[in-house]
Amino acid sequence: MIDRLLEIVGPKGVISDATEMLPFLTDWRGRKQGHAICVVLPASTEEVAAVIRLAHAEGQPVFASGGNTGLCYGAVPESGAPAKPGIVLSLRRMNRIRAIDRAANLAIVDAGVVLGDLHKAADHIDRQFPLHLGSEGSAQIGGLISTNAGGTAVVRYGPMRDLVAGLEVVLADGRVLNDLAALRKDNTGYMLRQLFIGAEGTLGVITGAALHLHPKQNNSVHAWVDVPSPTEAVELLSRFRDAAGPYIEAFELVSASQIELVVRHVDRVRIPFANIPNWSLMVELSSADSSTGLREMLEKILEAGLEEGLITDAMVPASQQQADDIWHVRHSVSEANKKEGIGVVHDIAVRTSNVPDFIKAADKVSAESYPQAVTQVVCHLGDGNVHYILMFQHDFWSQRPDMDAFALQIERTIHDVGARFEGTFSAEHGVGRKLPEELERLCDPLRYELMQQVKQLFDPQNRMNPGVLLSPPDHGAKP
Amino acid sequence: MIDRLLEIVGPKGVISDATEMLPFLTDWRGRKQGHAICVVLPASTEEVAAVIRLAHAEGQPVFASGGNTGLCYGAVPESGAPAKPGIVLSLRRMNRIRAIDRAANLAIVDAGVVLGDLHKAADHIDRQFPLHLGSEGSAQIGGLISTNAGGTAVVRYGPMRDLVAGLEVVLADGRVLNDLAALRKDNTGYMLRQLFIGAEGTLGVITGAALHLHPKQNNSVHAWVDVPSPTEAVELLSRFRDAAGPYIEAFELVSASQIELVVRHVDRVRIPFANIPNWSLMVELSSADSSTGLREMLEKILEAGLEEGLITDAMVPASQQQADDIWHVRHSVSEANKKEGIGVVHDIAVRTSNVPDFIKAADKVSAESYPQAVTQVVCHLGDGNVHYILMFQHDFWSQRPDMDAFALQIERTIHDVGARFEGTFSAEHGVGRKLPEELERLCDPLRYELMQQVKQLFDPQNRMNPGVLLSPPDHGAKP
Repeated sequence: MIDRLLEIVGPKGVISDATEMLPFLTDWRGRKQGHAICVVLPASTEEVAAVIRLAHAEGQPVFASGGNTGLCYGAVPESGAPAKPGIVLSLRRMNRIRAIDRAANLAIVDAGVVLGDLHKAADHIDRQFPLHLGSEGSAQIGGLISTNAGGTAVVRYGPMRDLVAGLEVVLADGRVLNDLAALRKDNTGYMLRQLFIGAEGTLGVITGAALHLHPKQNNSVHAWVDVPSPTEAVELLSRFRDAAGPYIEAFELVSASQIELVVRHVDRVRIPFANIPNWSLMVELSSADSSTGLREMLEKILEAGLEEGLITDAMVPASQQQADDIWHVRHSVSEANKKEGIGVVHDIAVRTSNVPDFIKAADKVSAESYPQAVTQVVCHLGDGNVHYILMFQHDFWSQRPDMDAFALQIERTIHDVGARFEGTFSAEHGVGRKLPEELERLCDPLRYELMQQVKQLFDPQNRMNPGVLLSPPDHGAKP
Repeated sequence: MIDRLLEIVGPKGVISDATEMLPFLTDWRGRKQGHAICVVLPASTEEVAAVIRLAHAEGQPVFASGGNTGLCYGAVPESGAPAKPGIVLSLRRMNRIRAIDRAANLAIVDAGVVLGDLHKAADHIDRQFPLHLGSEGSAQIGGLISTNAGGTAVVRYGPMRDLVAGLEVVLADGRVLNDLAALRKDNTGYMLRQLFIGAEGTLGVITGAALHLHPKQNNSVHAWVDVPSPTEAVELLSRFRDAAGPYIEAFELVSASQIELVVRHVDRVRIPFANIPNWSLMVELSSADSSTGLREMLEKILEAGLEEGLITDAMVPASQQQADDIWHVRHSVSEANKKEGIGVVHDIAVRTSNVPDFIKAADKVSAESYPQAVTQVVCHLGDGNVHYILMFQHDFWSQRPDMDAFALQIERTIHDVGARFEGTFSAEHGVGRKLPEELERLCDPLRYELMQQVKQLFDPQNRMNPGVLLSPPDHGAKP
């Protein structure tokens, strides 16, 4: 197999040394490791197609690998079949920006392009690509599309799905589906492209994409608002949508318990209030048009909110430094929680109007079932995406007989609360190899059956990322 | 069959009288007529499911019918199999607005709701549903989703596809797929919903939808701009996107030849220029925020354009009357063309940056192949959607031995020009029963094969709108 792969991609395109392979077999947090015959790094779509045709002929699984920045082990190769360990397919060498079209606000790129490099290319033509993540220095476009990545600007620009204008995909049999025309309008049949977005590499390998660019934002205002409860925060969201709808760049809701941990564990944290707010609403408005009266809009909404008791207190930064201080607190959450203890983090999304009731219900269940936990809420309120966290002290946690089973039990409990509000257990992190059983358990059975049939249609031998997203029909690995 | 249908939907739910059926068998322009056993009008999703289960058991085709406002005969029932004429399924009685959620900017509606009624409901909660069409008084949500309707505000809000947050669909076997949770974020597998949008009723019957609402626009400015050619119009689009990106509500490009016909045939037309512009750019900017300096933005862009020779002349209305005059001209195009002669209209879309070259190429081909035609261009430039029209005089047309064949020959010629620019032959009108052969001829063969497989997966007996969109594999009707 390796010799024939070498014929296709050349010596620079194959890694078979165990040590060199390791980063491709292990998730970036080192929690899970798989194995594969080798890592293949094609330099073109044609080479990807030839590699997949070969894997098809050999019945070998193909594990597409992007920047390996996922949280659900979707990039860990594990065929479950010793005779068919499969190959890791890395698109790292396919990192060309094929074209960038200012008039059409489009970029056509290889799937291996790193997000940060696309940001720079868009900047060169006075545009932006508005997907922003902590991992943008290594995350690749193909992986970001395959996981329908979210990030901090979803409230304004939508997830990756909304930024994709076209795709180039190599199917399980090696045929290339070219859908890069990137037309704003096209009513000639079924929107197949959308199936591959968020499919986590289980239907084919994305090798290229057409992406929507947006105008640059060079005018922004920020606020840190103390609200009595999530209910008032939702009403404020509605008012911001009325008065400043197109400008909402961030709308984050954070519980007092979470801010306390940041204050306790993180340096250079400044709280511009006498006491930590009950609930912190952190807001950014921005506009491409420097004449937009964002500050007036913001102050008008805040003043009305204060008068009506929707707002307890509010701080509008007078300097960039004060603005940075707000987001320093927001972005220090992970660091603080790591230092505090063991946090069981959930990625629930419900309709924004249901966020307050979901949080109440989750608090109730947590207090009853897990009194040892302190709970925190970090919520992308504009998206209804609640990262609900149960925080345990190390010594309590280490006394659990089976920590994984305990964590799973907690996750199921919170997932069930989300389900009561028609919510999802995976808003932005995906399913990967971590949650296929939760998907099978919580997904509408008809939808799940149709997804299995779609998988069967595009990948009848179950060779594309087997074990990711869907459990194989017989719950054993194929082929 | 009729008796058993009566048991499901009651006497109010079945029309079998030939005269009463006629409107459901004929397209609204009276150009094409089909036939069916009867028309069934269920009052609930459960009734739709029961009707489709019965049709499934009987092997009878199901022709979903909305407001019957389409242009491609997609709503004309024609099974092609005398033994199995099938039933028309009208959702007219399912016209309930199930819920409307201001905080989440969502409306959950029956598929039979008329677009105009949704406009009113959104207005009641100080929101808008930004899909606007000439037929909004009768077009129904289900049909608008099944055809991925476009309309005049696509440049800003996208087509129907971008406005759908969730669907309820009855599948070919009568099972109900409920996907109305309408979450902003959900990464739990394949986006099946997107397959039904624009599927023209060939994969299942849409019975309900969750739709995105938007803030109301109460601040707008307009301009009629004389530009030397489409090339300058595209550059201006790019500048408007830079300086007024979020506010572009309409960006229409019209040829002088088209304006001349409007002047010739339509009353109360005022041209605010000494001569008819070479190319007319008709622009609207609007904002939900009354303080947005739209007029300043507009004038700044126009002044720069005039200085640099991108613009020959421009008129910014001083009154609402003058603004209405601009759009009266734009909206009188169909009336004028009907009076002038026989217009062969095309619905091409290319990338905006390719619009000028497409128009040049289409002009060249038309002058060579059809010197008897005068050509007009009516272009939604923001979407790259060019309605390219060849206008013939009645007496010339009536002398064609086979007018339909002549029209088809012209259409193929222009479609081929569009294809040279990676364009589509159906940007917003769909395929219906008019263009399946063009789809098969022009679609990427792999994409076409995959669409046939998806059709086979969801509708193995080919009973959902048979003959619409895809030609059956054997080019004969089934079952």
